[in-house]
Amino acid sequence: MLEDKNMIKTPISALGEFGLIKHLTQSFEIKNPTTKTSIGDDCAVIDPDGKKMVVTTDCLAEGVHFNLGYVPLKHLGYKAVVVNLSDVAAMNVKPSQILVSIAVSNRFPVEALDEIYAGIKLACDRYQVDLVGGDTTSSNAGLVINITAIGMEVEEEIVRRSGAKPNDLLVVTGDLGGAYLGLQILEREHAVFLANPNMQPEMEGYDYILERQLKPEARTDVKNILKELGITPTSMIDVSDGLASEVLHLSDQSKVGFRLYEEKLPMDSLTVTTAEEFNLNPVVCAMNGGEDYELLMTIAPSDFEKIKNHPDFSIIGHAVDAEQGNFLVLRGSNELSQITAQGWDAFLNRS
Amino acid sequence: MLEDKNMIKTPISALGEFGLIKHLTQSFEIKNPTTKTSIGDDCAVIDPDGKKMVVTTDCLAEGVHFNLGYVPLKHLGYKAVVVNLSDVAAMNVKPSQILVSIAVSNRFPVEALDEIYAGIKLACDRYQVDLVGGDTTSSNAGLVINITAIGMEVEEEIVRRSGAKPNDLLVVTGDLGGAYLGLQILEREHAVFLANPNMQPEMEGYDYILERQLKPEARTDVKNILKELGITPTSMIDVSDGLASEVLHLSDQSKVGFRLYEEKLPMDSLTVTTAEEFNLNPVVCAMNGGEDYELLMTIAPSDFEKIKNHPDFSIIGHAVDAEQGNFLVLRGSNELSQITAQGWDAFLNRS
Repeated sequence: MLEDKNMIKTPISALGEFGLIKHLTQSFEIKNPTTKTSIGDDCAVIDPDGKKMVVTTDCLAEGVHFNLGYVPLKHLGYKAVVVNLSDVAAMNVKPSQILVSIAVSNRFPVEALDEIYAGIKLACDRYQVDLVGGDTTSSNAGLVINITAIGMEVEEEIVRRSGAKPNDLLVVTGDLGGAYLGLQILEREHAVFLANPNMQPEMEGYDYILERQLKPEARTDVKNILKELGITPTSMIDVSDGLASEVLHLSDQSKVGFRLYEEKLPMDSLTVTTAEEFNLNPVVCAMNGGEDYELLMTIAPSDFEKIKNHPDFSIIGHAVDAEQGNFLVLRGSNELSQITAQGWDAFLNRS
Repeated sequence: MLEDKNMIKTPISALGEFGLIKHLTQSFEIKNPTTKTSIGDDCAVIDPDGKKMVVTTDCLAEGVHFNLGYVPLKHLGYKAVVVNLSDVAAMNVKPSQILVSIAVSNRFPVEALDEIYAGIKLACDRYQVDLVGGDTTSSNAGLVINITAIGMEVEEEIVRRSGAKPNDLLVVTGDLGGAYLGLQILEREHAVFLANPNMQPEMEGYDYILERQLKPEARTDVKNILKELGITPTSMIDVSDGLASEVLHLSDQSKVGFRLYEEKLPMDSLTVTTAEEFNLNPVVCAMNGGEDYELLMTIAPSDFEKIKNHPDFSIIGHAVDAEQGNFLVLRGSNELSQITAQGWDAFLNRS
């Protein structure tokens, strides 16, 4: 319902493979001195300048990660970049380059790819990242976008999932659960639209959570904030699959357990009221919703004073010995609820 | 027809996303000291050790780049890796790491992914490359494999497409046109099979060209051969889309023209006889067939003596001033045929 039905339609075959790549990428400018050779050779050449490289790749598939019935293509391009930059940010590294592969069926005209690339360019500009390579190919059906993101940093600054120690504080940026409830709104209104295309979607008042779903941001700003505070996290991960799932990853990789406090979980008031509207427990949305792209980290207990009142961070728990397991301490009680991997699962939940 | 119909079928959802990744990647071992962190964190961490990094990404889509009716999944996994390693080799760099993203429909059981990963592992072992990351997700339809390949090298060793000078010799490794004719055999026998599943495919005697199509190799060996010969190419590209297309790329990036000699084009005798069987001109197959994954390079004229009788290389022409354009000099005459981009095009020819 957000698609422009009056779009001019140029078949992809009109441009040919190389013409298409040139057409899609000509407006991109190189911003990083580390990018030595970009699109137009067999490989991009990057000069890490003595630093280590971090590399990640992530795939978004139509019908699984997005529904083109309600996700505008430009937003999709933007989000595909952001989810990868978020992985780089989760290593405490500033992302600097991306490569983009798109498999697209011939039902998409060139103008549809233009929209996706407009979103990719917006993200490249916003995050000062260079597009250095990629591939655009036809596919039998559906749209698959794969992005590889690269960053570089000295070893001492890189933060892995594996460094948490018992008594470390568990800290998360921003607020949780919003993206999941934004998706509920989009799916509800899309179902209404399919039942009666003349009905106007009721999106007013849901701006914040819709934006959390449609146009998430990667917390590449957190690296600088932590630096100013004089904090190096002991471990870090981004919240893509849901807080519960990420806590279990840190637990697994760091060989610790965690205690989380329900009352400490940061949620926007719109997230809470919308959850109630859908008869959902807001805490379940925060724990299992996913796609928030906030950063979850552990910090040394001695850093408590530096971070305790900072508006960007919430201290939501602490690490314990591995044998003590992973539990959520319920509000107003000492009751414990075991944390299980109910996080978003591409195969189980949506296929 | 090459698929094992008795394969045990485990639905992908039985393992879940993280279980699946673990299942698919647990047999891979790290071989390169530059791989510092592999699968299991938000990003892989690679130590280029003062060198520059080259990075490439390439996407293979079902129905466009392969037909599962006659391409075994293991071969597909192997080939998906090889085509990316070939791009790294074309920079005169030894590939060292890959990341693999697979979007797969639920019609594929876990055992199908196992076959693909068996091929990926074979390629990783053969080329001493580390699998350091990736993503496996369900898709609406079809199978899309995206691979990112990484290598590192000092600047002086990296060869781009842009360094050819007039009078440089144009040199290609191996022989050309075989992969294309292997595809013709596969498509012919598949059509026969579809018309009458009881007919036995006639593949005997076509081994070499079938292998060129189904199990191509990346010429990562060429870097060392050139080093031993004391040759650094002035420009280089891999032959993925067809010799004609690659010549035009070198021409475009190096601002030179080329003269190629029909009689110098290296072709296996099976390629020639199979082309005749299909009433195809073997030269057209060599020029436009693609998927040979040989390396096309220019070398300084002073390197002629070093390479002239080497069995791995054929001198097929030379560079001229850009204004003189790109032409094939026909056999036994001085007649010129203009070289045009009839190379393999994912959008025009096969979709």
